[in-house]
Amino acid sequence: LAQRPVITLTTDFGLQDHFVGTLRGVILGLVPDAQLVDISHSIQAFDLLDGTLTIAQAYKYFPAGTVHLVVVDPGVGTARRPLVASSERHRFVAPDNGVLSSVFAQEERMRVHQVTSDHYFLQPVSRTFHARDIFAPVAAYLARGVDSAQFGPEITDFVRFNLPRPKPAEGGALRGIVLKVDRFGNLITNISAQDAPALFEAVAPKFTLRVGTRDITQLRNAYAEAAIGEVFVIAGSMGFLEIAANKAPAAQLLSAGKGAEVTLTLEESARALSSASV
Amino acid sequence: LAQRPVITLTTDFGLQDHFVGTLRGVILGLVPDAQLVDISHSIQAFDLLDGTLTIAQAYKYFPAGTVHLVVVDPGVGTARRPLVASSERHRFVAPDNGVLSSVFAQEERMRVHQVTSDHYFLQPVSRTFHARDIFAPVAAYLARGVDSAQFGPEITDFVRFNLPRPKPAEGGALRGIVLKVDRFGNLITNISAQDAPALFEAVAPKFTLRVGTRDITQLRNAYAEAAIGEVFVIAGSMGFLEIAANKAPAAQLLSAGKGAEVTLTLEESARALSSASV
Amino acid sequence: LAQRPVITLTTDFGLQDHFVGTLRGVILGLVPDAQLVDISHSIQAFDLLDGTLTIAQAYKYFPAGTVHLVVVDPGVGTARRPLVASSERHRFVAPDNGVLSSVFAQEERMRVHQVTSDHYFLQPVSRTFHARDIFAPVAAYLARGVDSAQFGPEITDFVRFNLPRPKPAEGGALRGIVLKVDRFGNLITNISAQDAPALFEAVAPKFTLRVGTRDITQLRNAYAEAAIGEVFVIAGSMGFLEIAANKAPAAQLLSAGKGAEVTLTLEESARALSSASV
Repeated sequence: LAQRPVITLTTDFGLQDHFVGTLRGVILGLVPDAQLVDISHSIQAFDLLDGTLTIAQAYKYFPAGTVHLVVVDPGVGTARRPLVASSERHRFVAPDNGVLSSVFAQEERMRVHQVTSDHYFLQPVSRTFHARDIFAPVAAYLARGVDSAQFGPEITDFVRFNLPRPKPAEGGALRGIVLKVDRFGNLITNISAQDAPALFEAVAPKFTLRVGTRDITQLRNAYAEAAIGEVFVIAGSMGFLEIAANKAPAAQLLSAGKGAEVTLTLEESARALSSASV
Repeated sequence: LAQRPVITLTTDFGLQDHFVGTLRGVILGLVPDAQLVDISHSIQAFDLLDGTLTIAQAYKYFPAGTVHLVVVDPGVGTARRPLVASSERHRFVAPDNGVLSSVFAQEERMRVHQVTSDHYFLQPVSRTFHARDIFAPVAAYLARGVDSAQFGPEITDFVRFNLPRPKPAEGGALRGIVLKVDRFGNLITNISAQDAPALFEAVAPKFTLRVGTRDITQLRNAYAEAAIGEVFVIAGSMGFLEIAANKAPAAQLLSAGKGAEVTLTLEESARALSSASV
Repeated sequence: LAQRPVITLTTDFGLQDHFVGTLRGVILGLVPDAQLVDISHSIQAFDLLDGTLTIAQAYKYFPAGTVHLVVVDPGVGTARRPLVASSERHRFVAPDNGVLSSVFAQEERMRVHQVTSDHYFLQPVSRTFHARDIFAPVAAYLARGVDSAQFGPEITDFVRFNLPRPKPAEGGALRGIVLKVDRFGNLITNISAQDAPALFEAVAPKFTLRVGTRDITQLRNAYAEAAIGEVFVIAGSMGFLEIAANKAPAAQLLSAGKGAEVTLTLEESARALSSASV
């Protein structure tokens, strides 16, 4: 039994218009047995950071051979290039604007091709909906077995940006930021297990995480361990420290959101423990 | 032609993050030919009542053999148990917190297994995303044919709660509550055909349904039968009386919502008619 | 390898309730190998114009043989008829209320059958959820190969409405309206390439598009061509002129929304160019 080709969709198109339905139609029109899977269509509009965080969290769980279509594309209609990027297990179709940055950071070897073969496109190509006219058909042909090299020349000067990383601050502290707020109001910081390994252990040293004027000093191993109204830190499933509350949106309790600064200070002993990997 | 295994997803994860996409990836990574079907991902955050009402309305229409993944899980990371529950036609994977209560109420015989075999889990198991690390892989292995008993011991002390039921009130009245407000602003009460059979007939006796300070006295058989601005009662498709308006949100017109009390008073004759089954 | 039947869903049911999950269950219960594809479930409640614009944009990209279920149904429970409409490539199941109007406008020959054979329905048929009890099973049986004529008699008096069309105004101007606002805040007008061909060229003549008290005089070929804060006109992917801004919601910048009047005035020379096709 031949496996059906899996194609995932990640966009900032939302679900209220015809956009996503149209993409699905274009793909199925070319690969009727495709398995279409949404990662999310609620990437914040034009937000490359939100886009790259989202695809980078999800793609690796999909079966080998999956094609991932990622469209957050404020430059649609300009000269920014369409890309096909391939690792050993996964293939990606996206605009060349950095939206694959966190994928590039996780995958050792990727080959990237600029898409220039416009006979794969839907004609005429519109000015504002390249997802329909360029990216979706390219993803479909990839899933049908067309080789990446067929779409255009290999390039190495594709756009990539680094995720904001925490920086050392006064008194041995670490200054990070909130990367995103999730559906439950948890604040996902950019402080990872590499940055502060002690806080990813079951029993943590004393610490203070400052957000605005609030000092958070509790680490919890489960949301429900916390008292009602308590704001605490937890080792999140994305690999970063998260600021959370039990059945309540921490973002609202702290009046903090995406981009907010956080400052982590560990006790002397813990700092020693962490310093090796910082 | 072998049928593809159907797996439904019901969660409170929302659609704006990577959560649901990641679940889909985990499942397809293990069962590439699975047919993934969303029931809803917009269960109100942490709301077990909303979760159980939703899965209980939808599951029975799916084909025999369907695996239903239901994750509303405020206790994630604590000692609350993961469950596999099986009826003759359906299988459910969920945390042991009552979110399957309305399924248990509809299915005569169910076998429930606590999931203890952690070699089915994604390792390392995170503290906050057991849907990804425990529930999704268990659902996938179930769909692949692993027997429920393989996941752990059968138990009978699983958590279940009763839906709030209407209670007799002064003067032969019935006091219920609003279970939920739907997308159209209809108020779904907990008064069923068993509680007030007369109101599920095409022609109803005189009655008053009080919500707050408003008395509703009209029963309609279709939304469009009502005058503009009229608030009325209708026998809803979930099996409960609903309070509705024509092309307008009754919840807003009445300033009433989930949990609001409603008091139903039938005329003498109708009461006699209903009393047999109350 | 037999192709799996494709069934698309377009409704105003939203995603927060069990409605859509239930539809999917009903269809899979009857056609377990169906490929279910959402076009959108966020059609504005009861809004036939939004519904018909959405299905009309998306359906044509789907493979031949696709069944499209379209339910925006304020008249549910009344005598309004359920329909099966078939073109050479596509089939549609919808209430007879005009929600297919833009499809009828695009498809030359369609045969329309009233659905009267109630042995295809789920029994008992509820008063408020015909999508579950009537439309979904009919779509499923169609996908299983039941001929349209089996569902009931052919009719020609089905409901259809015309999309609002721009009208000539004083001084050779064209007066149109905003058909919808999309997820990005773009205002989609009803002025098409036929109405104002000059504005669909890469280089446009001088023009003024008035919305409220604002005069828009710039045409752009890509969002990112515009200065920050600039509001401009662009030839949109739906085939209509759109009013947009670069990474900002034009609707908000202009305080304009669906139904707003727009007045297009072209320079003399351009008008001459356009007049043939108006």
